[in-house]
Amino acid sequence: MSTLKNDTFLRALMREPVDYTPSWLMRQAGRYLPEYNATRARAGNFMALCQNPDFATEVTLQPLARYPLDAAILFSDILTVPDAMGLGLYFAQGEGPRFERPLREEWAIRDLAAPDPTDKLGYVMDAVKSIRKALDGSVPLIGFSGSPFTLACYMVEGSGSDDFRTVKALLYQRPDLMHHILEVNATAVTDYLNAQIEAGAQAVMIFDTWGGMLSNRAYKEFSLAYMARVVEGLKKESEGRRVPSILFTKGGGLWLEDMAATGCDGLGLDWTIDIGAARKRVGDKVALQGNFDPLCLMGSPESIVREAEAILESYGNGSGHVFNLGHGINQNTPPESVDLLLQTVRNTSPKYHVA
Amino acid sequence: MSTLKNDTFLRALMREPVDYTPSWLMRQAGRYLPEYNATRARAGNFMALCQNPDFATEVTLQPLARYPLDAAILFSDILTVPDAMGLGLYFAQGEGPRFERPLREEWAIRDLAAPDPTDKLGYVMDAVKSIRKALDGSVPLIGFSGSPFTLACYMVEGSGSDDFRTVKALLYQRPDLMHHILEVNATAVTDYLNAQIEAGAQAVMIFDTWGGMLSNRAYKEFSLAYMARVVEGLKKESEGRRVPSILFTKGGGLWLEDMAATGCDGLGLDWTIDIGAARKRVGDKVALQGNFDPLCLMGSPESIVREAEAILESYGNGSGHVFNLGHGINQNTPPESVDLLLQTVRNTSPKYHVA
Repeated sequence: MSTLKNDTFLRALMREPVDYTPSWLMRQAGRYLPEYNATRARAGNFMALCQNPDFATEVTLQPLARYPLDAAILFSDILTVPDAMGLGLYFAQGEGPRFERPLREEWAIRDLAAPDPTDKLGYVMDAVKSIRKALDGSVPLIGFSGSPFTLACYMVEGSGSDDFRTVKALLYQRPDLMHHILEVNATAVTDYLNAQIEAGAQAVMIFDTWGGMLSNRAYKEFSLAYMARVVEGLKKESEGRRVPSILFTKGGGLWLEDMAATGCDGLGLDWTIDIGAARKRVGDKVALQGNFDPLCLMGSPESIVREAEAILESYGNGSGHVFNLGHGINQNTPPESVDLLLQTVRNTSPKYHVA
Repeated sequence: MSTLKNDTFLRALMREPVDYTPSWLMRQAGRYLPEYNATRARAGNFMALCQNPDFATEVTLQPLARYPLDAAILFSDILTVPDAMGLGLYFAQGEGPRFERPLREEWAIRDLAAPDPTDKLGYVMDAVKSIRKALDGSVPLIGFSGSPFTLACYMVEGSGSDDFRTVKALLYQRPDLMHHILEVNATAVTDYLNAQIEAGAQAVMIFDTWGGMLSNRAYKEFSLAYMARVVEGLKKESEGRRVPSILFTKGGGLWLEDMAATGCDGLGLDWTIDIGAARKRVGDKVALQGNFDPLCLMGSPESIVREAEAILESYGNGSGHVFNLGHGINQNTPPESVDLLLQTVRNTSPKYHVA
């Protein structure tokens, strides 16, 4: 493996001095890019992109060719793990992901087992290796997984949902069964992320997209506790370097102190919190990643520049901030707005990093 | 008007001593009740229920006949106001509310005017009067409105939305036009709530269902500022008594201090915040209303009792808490679960109010 030419992202996550605030964007390889759509058309469908390491590598690198990004993120889907558990992931035309066999019976829940990540998820590890080779040390590669609870949401509901009513009904009717699913998921996510690290991921992120719809008590018991278990089980070093971990609960702004206490290195923030206030609350315990509203990219150039500068200013001086969106980029985003955002961060941020 | 026999709800909102924690439930008159569905079938459709004072009175009183509730809430819809502005509200079968003429052109936005609430919204005031008469002083009647921003969401988008992308695009492209809509809406909401108070509403609540999807900065500029203007313009007394106002921003747990600073009397809480932590943050500035997860009503009796007791215990001793859900009741809720919840609150709460 070649040495890393740009490690600004990794250093910011460790709150080590940097020259500017590094950036990457959630879902930076995606449908807002014409070149992505062209590759996807060649691949045939979304899952074929994920399952073929050549296609996954191609789309992972596309945004890096256009924009001044400081990290690449593995192109994949959070639902590969429950798919490998045998739930049968598919994408209905014009709809979100669905499972053929959602967890609706006690026997199915009791039968659940964590998959060997090098077997049924070998295609993901192949993609990690292929992307690392193609990156050739230009920027670090981020691996990722859904959180145990977020995976459970799709596994029980069988699809996305407005309110995940079936999930909450199970959680409040049979907490024992929900805990069983989450234990299996925590093992599966830990093994999956460690396999990504062994294959070459240089940082890992856990996406807790749906933990924020839980009550304060239920969040701690059913989502945070299992993310903490995953963080504890992660390989902490690879290639002679710390592999930082980032936790992101969308809508989790009230729980930052608890999230920081898991031992992770960084927290993702959505856009509802003031990043300066968040920094005061977590102190020097963790780095912060975020917190630009992705829909502000639909706005005027002035509003994009103003919002980006306001976030940088609110975070203030010193390292520990990775600029990002507060959620995945919207498919209707104009690619030139993304360029303006990233150029603004790159050009404005050095003044916050003067020694 | 007769004297109020049970004013526990009003006293709790003013943080005056009470014997138990009063309760009401958002959307307590609704589709989870068979008697509601029967009345709705007779009325023909949802809007006919709202527009006919006899039907509105009938459904408003239905949950009070079943449950130990300490307040009634006017049966109506938040979108009556933009409908009275001429946007053409309708309900497509099996879908949410829609507008025939959403605000998509600058001229339409410039043409917008606050409606005279006693004219085009006279049916709402007739319902308030009729409900007050039917209540006969048993419990207070709550009037309500959508927040200026939440109304604007539907007015611009033309319907509900996952992300209100059109609204955010307008907000970030043409903030001047968004501010114009919000100014008109703030006047309309103030006039509408004051007309409800004149007709007999004894407390008022402002529902900011969508403010919580805004960034920290945008929330303060586009939602909170206009709710503050409404609160300032509200009639503060009626029938020789304070008319308390409650602000509720779903997902607004990070902004409680700012909301309390508007001069309102109470804040609605969703279920993501610990109510004891919220109480510490707002001090004795406002009362708190909430914060039971409505989907916990799908759970086992044990979980309903446990969650209700945990909320009461977290709030702790003394007045200033109105028990409620953190969002409207789900239509699939078993009516007996609602009874268990309300009996639990009524029976468990007196120990927190011993002098």
